[in-house]
Amino acid sequence: MTIEEVSEVLHMNGGMGETSYAMNSLVQKKVILMTKPITEEAIAKLYSTTLPIRSLAIADLGCSSGPNALLAVSELITAVTELSGELGRKAPEFQVFLNDLPGNDFNTIFRSVQRFQEKHLNNLKKNDQTLFVNGVPGSFYGRLFAADSLHFVHSSYSLQWLSQVPDGIVEENKGNIYMAGNSPPRVLEAYYAQFQRDFSLFLRCRAAEVVAGGRMVLTFLGRRSEEASSKECCYIWELMSMALNQMASEGLIDQKKLDGFNIPQYTPSPLEVEAEVLKEGSFAVDRLAVSKVSWDSYADGGGELINGRSREVRRDGGYNVANCMRAVAEPLLVSQFGPGEVIDEVFRRYRAIVTERMAEEKTEFVNVIVSLTKSRLC
Amino acid sequence: MTIEEVSEVLHMNGGMGETSYAMNSLVQKKVILMTKPITEEAIAKLYSTTLPIRSLAIADLGCSSGPNALLAVSELITAVTELSGELGRKAPEFQVFLNDLPGNDFNTIFRSVQRFQEKHLNNLKKNDQTLFVNGVPGSFYGRLFAADSLHFVHSSYSLQWLSQVPDGIVEENKGNIYMAGNSPPRVLEAYYAQFQRDFSLFLRCRAAEVVAGGRMVLTFLGRRSEEASSKECCYIWELMSMALNQMASEGLIDQKKLDGFNIPQYTPSPLEVEAEVLKEGSFAVDRLAVSKVSWDSYADGGGELINGRSREVRRDGGYNVANCMRAVAEPLLVSQFGPGEVIDEVFRRYRAIVTERMAEEKTEFVNVIVSLTKSRLC
Repeated sequence: MTIEEVSEVLHMNGGMGETSYAMNSLVQKKVILMTKPITEEAIAKLYSTTLPIRSLAIADLGCSSGPNALLAVSELITAVTELSGELGRKAPEFQVFLNDLPGNDFNTIFRSVQRFQEKHLNNLKKNDQTLFVNGVPGSFYGRLFAADSLHFVHSSYSLQWLSQVPDGIVEENKGNIYMAGNSPPRVLEAYYAQFQRDFSLFLRCRAAEVVAGGRMVLTFLGRRSEEASSKECCYIWELMSMALNQMASEGLIDQKKLDGFNIPQYTPSPLEVEAEVLKEGSFAVDRLAVSKVSWDSYADGGGELINGRSREVRRDGGYNVANCMRAVAEPLLVSQFGPGEVIDEVFRRYRAIVTERMAEEKTEFVNVIVSLTKSRLC
Repeated sequence: MTIEEVSEVLHMNGGMGETSYAMNSLVQKKVILMTKPITEEAIAKLYSTTLPIRSLAIADLGCSSGPNALLAVSELITAVTELSGELGRKAPEFQVFLNDLPGNDFNTIFRSVQRFQEKHLNNLKKNDQTLFVNGVPGSFYGRLFAADSLHFVHSSYSLQWLSQVPDGIVEENKGNIYMAGNSPPRVLEAYYAQFQRDFSLFLRCRAAEVVAGGRMVLTFLGRRSEEASSKECCYIWELMSMALNQMASEGLIDQKKLDGFNIPQYTPSPLEVEAEVLKEGSFAVDRLAVSKVSWDSYADGGGELINGRSREVRRDGGYNVANCMRAVAEPLLVSQFGPGEVIDEVFRRYRAIVTERMAEEKTEFVNVIVSLTKSRLC
């Protein structure tokens, strides 16, 4: 899958339907809320150590659609507005930039912008200020913003996506759709090299766009282990690979298509993230942290978090996880195997496999969070 | 229809289908191209009389979707890039802001952004520059951009739309859906007062956003006459009113709903536009012009202009005009009369009526164009 193809098909499921990302993004919401102390610390440091800023520009990269698209920036605006009061400053004007690939459902976000603005307007009007929202379509592995135009960048559960499937791995990774325990070393190396290229390009682009002293908080779906094919990051895709291989052996999907299918993702360790930041050189690492979250977002009392469904706690973990992964991966699968019944069948089987495994073991995603400051001289 | 209602239902038909704005916006395209000399003169004056600008910010307000959404900014970028060469300057970095109401189909625009960027990239790369595109959802009768952040504002065939149907006219304008020859004076006055309030608010908001010396070129669907109910602006809606009244008398649509339906539009004269600019005081009038364009965009050799349909010149003027008006007005009609067959029937009848009238008389839209410069002291 080339850069052009990934940029076209990599997007969360749009709309508000049963398999939409909007309705199946509680894990991602939890991760944003778990990271709040780090995010708020970063913006507080930015805001309290700089001269009063007339217009504060915040970008969310890989914002997706649904309730999460505006969640992080909303928390940031609240934090800065409160801090302004404490510091006895006038709150700034806010410029919000929501970025994702062009296939993202921006229409659904834009229809919720007014409610979002109204939520903050009371406090802002007291300050004679307002709040501007922009959508920015394009890959964050390229320039997206004018030079020195951003103060704060947030990105959650997006940077593990690569710009492309690494070149030359198709023949060697047959039987798998991602890095796996039995992937040859060259496949793992190719994935890591692609991550390094992509993330360092990301850092170079942001270095041009973020003002000196500006900050970024980036959360990756990642791993603690230094082993790239570690179960803690690869298992969720391995189970999907099992469902797909079952279907190929029954002739329900084309074996050749399956052989040619690999997920454009790399889930790095904290050290791998840090290494690229140090190599690129424009940002200093303020914090590097790891946290965990259950595959099933409704487990451990997460049910009350979901918008509009608070009473309907979904007890079927396999259903929740399969739907969560479907909201994320369906467009990729459709681009390879076509739409319709075949995709329904993939996720029926995936749900059954996931349900079985979750009964037997503890299943968690690992989050790698890095908080960065743009150097004043670079 | 209140501000909230208009902001929700006023948008061109989305997508790329037969009744979409994308496929039925040749009139609007012609108007943009007809206005090009004025637009290019304005941006050339801006660019050649200011110090080199590192990042040039251009906004299109009411950009809609389809091929027109990026047309005007594309012409502006080409003009500035060429001018840079002539002046021996490095071309600037471009920031493009595309604005429309939140119901606009931004997804379709965003999927064409990459092609648009590639079109300009050759020239820009020579200058070591690039081009950033933002979508900005919201009403231009309110603040949309940070203070002093825009250099150039373009708007075509958008500012005749009011923020709301004027208050208190429903009872007095029964039988009409817009200003008409038999509308009582109070209806005409209410429409004009609403235009004055809206356009002066527009000017105040832009005055805060446009830098000193910055420019705006605004094209209204308008009229030459000083008479607000003049046939040259009201006839096109009067014919739609005929179709709706026919259907109400046959019981196909609810008479009460029809009585309560009025179009939130005001098509001003050049003097009315100028008067508001002078009253608001932040902008100087550089040019004030009037032009005309046939209702049927395929008449007088316009057929070659349409994208991808150049060989299929559509000879049925009634069809072209009805589709053009449907692409613009369908969401408004649907919000009042519901979707489906009833709307198809409205436009079948409208097409028949329009066809008949076009055979008998010359039917043209009037464009009012104003070119403005933001005063250096205000």
